[in-house]
Amino acid sequence: MSQLGEFDLIARYFKHPARRAVLGVGDDCALLQPRPGTQLAISCDMLVEGRHFLPTVDPFCLGHKALAVNLSDLAACGATPLAFTLALALPQVDEAWLGPFAQGLLALADAHGCELVGGDTTRGPLNICITVFGEVPVLNGRSQALLRSGARPGDDLYVSGTLGDAALALDVLFGRLSVPAAVLDAARLRLEKPSPRVALGQALRGIASAAIDVSDGLLGDLGHILQQSGVGATVEANIATSLIASKSYLASSGGQFEPQPAPADWHRWALAGGDDYELLFSAPPSARAEVAAAAQASQTPVTRIGQIEALPGLRLLDGQGELLSHRYPSFDHFR
Amino acid sequence: MSQLGEFDLIARYFKHPARRAVLGVGDDCALLQPRPGTQLAISCDMLVEGRHFLPTVDPFCLGHKALAVNLSDLAACGATPLAFTLALALPQVDEAWLGPFAQGLLALADAHGCELVGGDTTRGPLNICITVFGEVPVLNGRSQALLRSGARPGDDLYVSGTLGDAALALDVLFGRLSVPAAVLDAARLRLEKPSPRVALGQALRGIASAAIDVSDGLLGDLGHILQQSGVGATVEANIATSLIASKSYLASSGGQFEPQPAPADWHRWALAGGDDYELLFSAPPSARAEVAAAAQASQTPVTRIGQIEALPGLRLLDGQGELLSHRYPSFDHFR
Repeated sequence: MSQLGEFDLIARYFKHPARRAVLGVGDDCALLQPRPGTQLAISCDMLVEGRHFLPTVDPFCLGHKALAVNLSDLAACGATPLAFTLALALPQVDEAWLGPFAQGLLALADAHGCELVGGDTTRGPLNICITVFGEVPVLNGRSQALLRSGARPGDDLYVSGTLGDAALALDVLFGRLSVPAAVLDAARLRLEKPSPRVALGQALRGIASAAIDVSDGLLGDLGHILQQSGVGATVEANIATSLIASKSYLASSGGQFEPQPAPADWHRWALAGGDDYELLFSAPPSARAEVAAAAQASQTPVTRIGQIEALPGLRLLDGQGELLSHRYPSFDHFR
Repeated sequence: MSQLGEFDLIARYFKHPARRAVLGVGDDCALLQPRPGTQLAISCDMLVEGRHFLPTVDPFCLGHKALAVNLSDLAACGATPLAFTLALALPQVDEAWLGPFAQGLLALADAHGCELVGGDTTRGPLNICITVFGEVPVLNGRSQALLRSGARPGDDLYVSGTLGDAALALDVLFGRLSVPAAVLDAARLRLEKPSPRVALGQALRGIASAAIDVSDGLLGDLGHILQQSGVGATVEANIATSLIASKSYLASSGGQFEPQPAPADWHRWALAGGDDYELLFSAPPSARAEVAAAAQASQTPVTRIGQIEALPGLRLLDGQGELLSHRYPSFDHFR
C-alpha cells in the first residue's frame, strides 16, 4: 500500500489551477460566480463497481465515463458545462489506477471547459460520485433549460446518434453472445467511453419542447417525458432498431453473429438497452428545419422516431404499422 | 427485499416541493438561480460505513450527520446554506432504515433552509455522498467568503464550542475506555449528531481573517490554515484541553474514569480528536470586540486558544508556557 496521503493524492492527481471558478480545490468550499442572467444547472451521479462498471474496465475509460454520464445530464438540460466536484472512495491508493483514471476524467473535463473545483477522497469500496454544474441562460425572464415536462401532443420525437450498442457490448462481455472483434471494439467504446451530447443540447435551447438523456433505455427514459408532460407517444420500433451502429456494420460487412441474435435482441438493445447517453427530445413539427440546423451545427445526427400524442401510454409500431405487444421494462437500479 | 423501485424511493423519501430552487428533484438537472451580487460556495463529503460511521449508528443520526459535515464546510466559508444533492448507494432497500435516515437528514436541512434539489440512488456498499451549495455575498467587488489563506502574524486564534468529546466517545465505543453512561451519552451526541456552526460562520464574515472547520483534529486542521496562509502559530494546549465538555462534567460531578485516562489522552482528544465540527478561525486583535459580538449574536461560545506568528511551524505550550514536544498527527483517511 502506498504511503500517499489524502491531501497529497488530491494535489498530485486532481489539483488543476482554477480558471472559471473563483476558488478551486483546496479550501473548505469552492466558489463559483455564475454570470448575471443565468441559472445554475446541477446534476449528480454515483457509479459503483459491479453495478455501473466491470472491475476489469480500463481506468482511463472509467474516469471519462464518470464525468460523461454527468455531462449527459447537463446536455439534456441544454446547459453549458462549468465545473464539477468529485468524491472518490478507493479500496487502496493504487497509483497505477489513479493516474489513468485522473487523465481520462480531466481530458474530458478540459474538452468541455468543465473544471474540477472540489471533492473528497476516502478509503472504502470503489465508488465515484460526481456533481456537475452548468449554466443556462434566462431570456426575457424565461429559463432556456430543457425540461422533461414540456412535450405537447403533435410534437415530433427525436433521438440523437445511435442506440443499443452499449447494451450489445455488455451482452458480449457477459458471455451471452459472440460477435467479431471489430464489432465488439466499436460497441465497447460506446459502453465504456460515451460521448455526451453537450453541443446538441445547447443547440436545442429554444427549439426542443422536452428532453432527457437516454441512460436507462429509450423506452424507460421516454416514459419520464410522457409522465412529466402528461402525454403519450407512438414510436417506430424499426427506426429505433435501425440505429444500432453494430447492426449496420455487420450488414455492410456481411458478418454474422454467432449465435445469430433474435429480432427480440435487436429490439431489446435499441429500445431498452441503457447506457446510450444520447438525447431523446421532442419539438413541434414547425421546428423541423431548426432541429436539422441544430443537428448540423453540433455535428450530431438526429433521427425522428415517433410522435407525441394526447392519448396516454406508449405505443410501439413495427415496420407494417402494427402495434408491437412487447413491453420493455426500463433499467431500474432497485428492481 | 422490497419491491420499491429507484424512482418510487426518491419520491417517497426524498421529494420535497422546491422552494428556493427554480427546479428540484425529478428532472435531469436541478436549477438554482443565485441572487445577483453573490457567489456560490460548494462543498462535497462522502461518508462510508466502517470508516466514517459504525454499522450500529442510529439512521436518524446518520442522516443528520451526513448533512451536518457538509453544512460545517459552508460554515467555515461563511456561506448561507441554499441547497444540496444526495447520492446514496444502499446494499438493499430497507424502509425501516430509509425512513429515519431521511427524517434526520431533512430535519437538519429544514432547520437551515437548505433544500434537497437532486441526487442519485443506486445499489452498492453503503455510501452517502452529499454536495452542498451556499451563498456568499460579494461587497464592493470583494468576496466575503472566509478562506484558509488569510491568517496574518499577530492574529488571535479562536475555536468555537468544545473539542475532543467525539473522539472520547469513539474510544469508549471501541472498548478502549469506560466512562459513566451520562458522560458517554453526552459525548456520543457530539460524535453522532454534531451541530454545524453555520450562524457563527456567517457572523464572522468581514471579521475573521481565516477559518476552517475542525473535522480531522484541531492541530491537523490548523496545519491547513498555517500552510495556506504561509504562517506559524502557538497554541495553548491546556486551554484547548479545557474545552473537553466531558472533562468538566466529570470534574463537577466528582466522577472518575475507569481506567483513569492519562493526560496524553486528554491532549489527544482535544488536539487531534477529529469529528468536532467546530470552527477554528483567526482574527486581528483589533477585532476582539467584534468576535465577541459575533459569538453572542450566533449564540456560540468561542475561546481564544493561541496566536498566529510569522515563524513557520506549530508550537504547543503547556500551562507553564513550556514547549510541549508531543506531535499529534492529524487524521488522514489514507494513512
